[in-house]
Amino acid sequence: MMLTDPSAKYRPFPQVDLPDRQWPSRIITAPPRWLSTDLRDGNQSLIDPMNAEKKTRFFDLLVKIGVKEIEVGFPSAGATEFDFIQDLVRSDRIPDDVTPQVLTQAREDLIATTFESLRGAKRAIVHVYNAISPAWRRIVFGMEQPEIKAIAVHAAKLLRDNAARQPDTDWYFEYSPETFSTAELDFSLECCEAVIDILQPTPDRPLILNLPATVEAATPNIYADQIEWFCRHISRRDSVVISLHTHNDRGTGVAAAELGIMAGADRVEGCMFGNGERTGNCDIVTVALNMYSQGINPGLDFSDIDEVIQTVEYCNQLPVHPRHPYGGELVFTAFSGSHQDAIKKGFAAQEVRNDEIWDVPYLPIDPADLGRNYEAVIRVNSQSGKGGVAWVLQQDKGLKLPKRMQADFSRVVQALADQSSRELNAADIWGAFEDHYRLSGDQPYRLIDYHEGGAAGDRIFTGKIAYQGGERSISGRGNGLLSSVLAALRDELGVDLDIADYSEHAIGAGTDVAAAAYVECRTSDGRTVFGIGTDTDVATASVQAVLSAANSVAGGA
Amino acid sequence: MMLTDPSAKYRPFPQVDLPDRQWPSRIITAPPRWLSTDLRDGNQSLIDPMNAEKKTRFFDLLVKIGVKEIEVGFPSAGATEFDFIQDLVRSDRIPDDVTPQVLTQAREDLIATTFESLRGAKRAIVHVYNAISPAWRRIVFGMEQPEIKAIAVHAAKLLRDNAARQPDTDWYFEYSPETFSTAELDFSLECCEAVIDILQPTPDRPLILNLPATVEAATPNIYADQIEWFCRHISRRDSVVISLHTHNDRGTGVAAAELGIMAGADRVEGCMFGNGERTGNCDIVTVALNMYSQGINPGLDFSDIDEVIQTVEYCNQLPVHPRHPYGGELVFTAFSGSHQDAIKKGFAAQEVRNDEIWDVPYLPIDPADLGRNYEAVIRVNSQSGKGGVAWVLQQDKGLKLPKRMQADFSRVVQALADQSSRELNAADIWGAFEDHYRLSGDQPYRLIDYHEGGAAGDRIFTGKIAYQGGERSISGRGNGLLSSVLAALRDELGVDLDIADYSEHAIGAGTDVAAAAYVECRTSDGRTVFGIGTDTDVATASVQAVLSAANSVAGGA
Repeated sequence: MMLTDPSAKYRPFPQVDLPDRQWPSRIITAPPRWLSTDLRDGNQSLIDPMNAEKKTRFFDLLVKIGVKEIEVGFPSAGATEFDFIQDLVRSDRIPDDVTPQVLTQAREDLIATTFESLRGAKRAIVHVYNAISPAWRRIVFGMEQPEIKAIAVHAAKLLRDNAARQPDTDWYFEYSPETFSTAELDFSLECCEAVIDILQPTPDRPLILNLPATVEAATPNIYADQIEWFCRHISRRDSVVISLHTHNDRGTGVAAAELGIMAGADRVEGCMFGNGERTGNCDIVTVALNMYSQGINPGLDFSDIDEVIQTVEYCNQLPVHPRHPYGGELVFTAFSGSHQDAIKKGFAAQEVRNDEIWDVPYLPIDPADLGRNYEAVIRVNSQSGKGGVAWVLQQDKGLKLPKRMQADFSRVVQALADQSSRELNAADIWGAFEDHYRLSGDQPYRLIDYHEGGAAGDRIFTGKIAYQGGERSISGRGNGLLSSVLAALRDELGVDLDIADYSEHAIGAGTDVAAAAYVECRTSDGRTVFGIGTDTDVATASVQAVLSAANSVAGGA
Repeated sequence: MMLTDPSAKYRPFPQVDLPDRQWPSRIITAPPRWLSTDLRDGNQSLIDPMNAEKKTRFFDLLVKIGVKEIEVGFPSAGATEFDFIQDLVRSDRIPDDVTPQVLTQAREDLIATTFESLRGAKRAIVHVYNAISPAWRRIVFGMEQPEIKAIAVHAAKLLRDNAARQPDTDWYFEYSPETFSTAELDFSLECCEAVIDILQPTPDRPLILNLPATVEAATPNIYADQIEWFCRHISRRDSVVISLHTHNDRGTGVAAAELGIMAGADRVEGCMFGNGERTGNCDIVTVALNMYSQGINPGLDFSDIDEVIQTVEYCNQLPVHPRHPYGGELVFTAFSGSHQDAIKKGFAAQEVRNDEIWDVPYLPIDPADLGRNYEAVIRVNSQSGKGGVAWVLQQDKGLKLPKRMQADFSRVVQALADQSSRELNAADIWGAFEDHYRLSGDQPYRLIDYHEGGAAGDRIFTGKIAYQGGERSISGRGNGLLSSVLAALRDELGVDLDIADYSEHAIGAGTDVAAAAYVECRTSDGRTVFGIGTDTDVATASVQAVLSAANSVAGGA
């Protein structure tokens, strides 16, 4: 059993006194500014931190996605970090509309090193932080509030003064009261106001105030309350940019960021697919695509999400989980029959409706918008119904089976899946289809050639059939092609079939068009068998379909 | 670039008109009823669905964790499902306080099969669903509201009548208006009221009304609004159990469940580690441990979370991600120096404070509560500072290095990590430590034995030293042990060191206690070298520490 009664060891998180909160009635209508900290908070949490080659690849990817503010490292952390940043700012990899950002602790020597690393940058954001919460004050620093605030003030002065000494760079600043979400709100405010007093931001040159949930410690509504409280109380609201920096310790880092935007924030810091310390940072991909799926252009481009995943996995050496929203390999997959059936109907309705609005059951976003294929949408296992199987045949072979034939074949697949107790792939399904309807392998009767003639309503079919190792000519008479074929089978080979249903459709378009024909037949002893034929000639496809059914009877299927 | 402007293709989710919503001011104070659907919604979404052996293992695990309501399958889906359920209810695997639940579509033949599969059960929940949202009505069924409602009513009657025919089982019912979160609230209510009218639940025999976010389609506050609206409007609130069933398409399935509980729900459906269709179901582990970390006993036991992970990964054949909240292998790991340092101080403060309250920076929950080890907490890479290295030495070797020696050694580790560009493990660190402080390998001076005597304040050290392949006797005089050793080194071997700092501490306790001694020495040319010695005798440890420093000088370190 649990080692301890948790009530003896853990305390509920205190609520924010904000009965007139407004955020629950707001919606997100525009994207925030995005800050990727993949190369900093992400990188510092990797088992194997990136080398310069990987960092460069990741940086180029972020630029390609459209991230305009990129935290590229912690220059005072060591030679590797410093050199990468210095090389980057002196390279031509940073487009004019992208601003590099670096992090530093609030110490004089580290801040000096930090500015040194950015020498030559056109524009840069220097991000300074100090932890301010009671636990950190007491446990980590052994300091009271005034000393903690003094650290922030001192840091702000160092930012101001170091910037003045490197006037060729266009400087912006970010201050993080680290551990904001577990600190007293009024003390966070006090530290931020003190920094504002030193740096004197304006609407044209705002200060970024980043409010981290350094460790996620409460339900996401509490974080939103904190953000709304802070936005209401901070002075010079028009001269500060409120930035969110959530973590995912409670699995609600994305929700906290979204509710935080509703609460008034302007900017979101995070990592691709939620990499970062412990459980990770806010997942920028998910927050951005959540907006996208509500009709808001996030300003980030994930139209080739597989390429993004590939680079991120290579650089981080961590997998994107198969069920990760939008990116996971299973998220556009449905195994259950009712889901598959609904998706199939959704695609069909989309085609008929012919408007642009996306409305397909079980698929909140069009996989094609992320560069994924429809083919990947459905896979088949023993839980799948006829919808999924039919879908695979349609996608891969262009066959649109009639309903009862779908049901007939789904029983075949179900039995096969139950036997194999693994996922069936498209090849398994096609193999089973060819076997069951005798399109290959054991074919008692195989059409070699035929001709058909006679008057309308009195047709004569004459065909050459491969049969029992030799060739056999058969002929029959009927009021149409199919009935004359059936007559030939009955009279010459003793196969007695009636047609219960017949359908056909074109496969493909233009000069490559072929035909598929389906027959549902009744045998003299009342059984139902199905047949299918495909050919470039629609009449030949029909004859093949009847022979397919006849083969099933002969084979005892 | 993005294939389309999303505003042409996707629509924002409509808000719920609930300006007087109460849930944002509420907190979670008690655990919900938990329903695991691992064997149903989880299983149907697997690439390789579980066979009976795996299902049995998973069922046993759920019972062990303490889940009291377990959805064990979809009996009418096929022989595999039916047989497993029938075998299970006839076995003795279901404890008296655990209720199996099964799912069925709202069709007469399927419901009959479903009841048949439960023949012999003491108690069971039959869960029937039909999708009710406009998209499903239009696209999947081609039906209007009255026909959809009629399906629910018909299903409820079938539940009632089938149950009456198997009176030996204690029956409970669950109705899901599937796609609840994307349906009109008043129509959901209408369907549920119609089912209530048929089944006539009472406070003693309540009906479970499950309100699924079949596909997550909005920020989690909207789902909470929907739940609060529904709880306010449903009749006989005391005779229904409001159940949540969230999915994670927007990465906020856990948040939606938590806010839904605050909005009044009684029960949560989900899967271990969030398995389930597409992006998964609500992750029960995270929701439960989120409560636990706030002092609320969730009634579920994850005190050996690694065992849970092992079984779940075996059965699902899907990994738990390294950053998955609570369960991931990296969530109790800190690589960055400042994090490591803070965690170390947190553990130390915990020990001093000696109360039960958990308050350790960066660790929202005590890893020991989940059966994890403290040793696993910190690993070291090139981003790590002295805190992490010191921690590893203390955990593995019991050494508490003085601050400046920590800094000295962290430079060594940093250089090593930069070189190797991979994570260093404890053995790497210990090897570097032994090398750098000459505890093994190249030792110019190695103590064989010694004695010490003389009056207080005038001590004579005489020692035998392995030196240049032979043995050498040295002696020196000073006001204490260390000064007499230093004199011997200076006078007889030409190694001139002064002691700048000295400390020692016990390692272990009781009869196994040993001593560690540390010296910080200045050389005649002003360099600082550190030395360490360990021995069961505290005096010998000191002598060893001085020799360790001398070896560093001789070796040119």
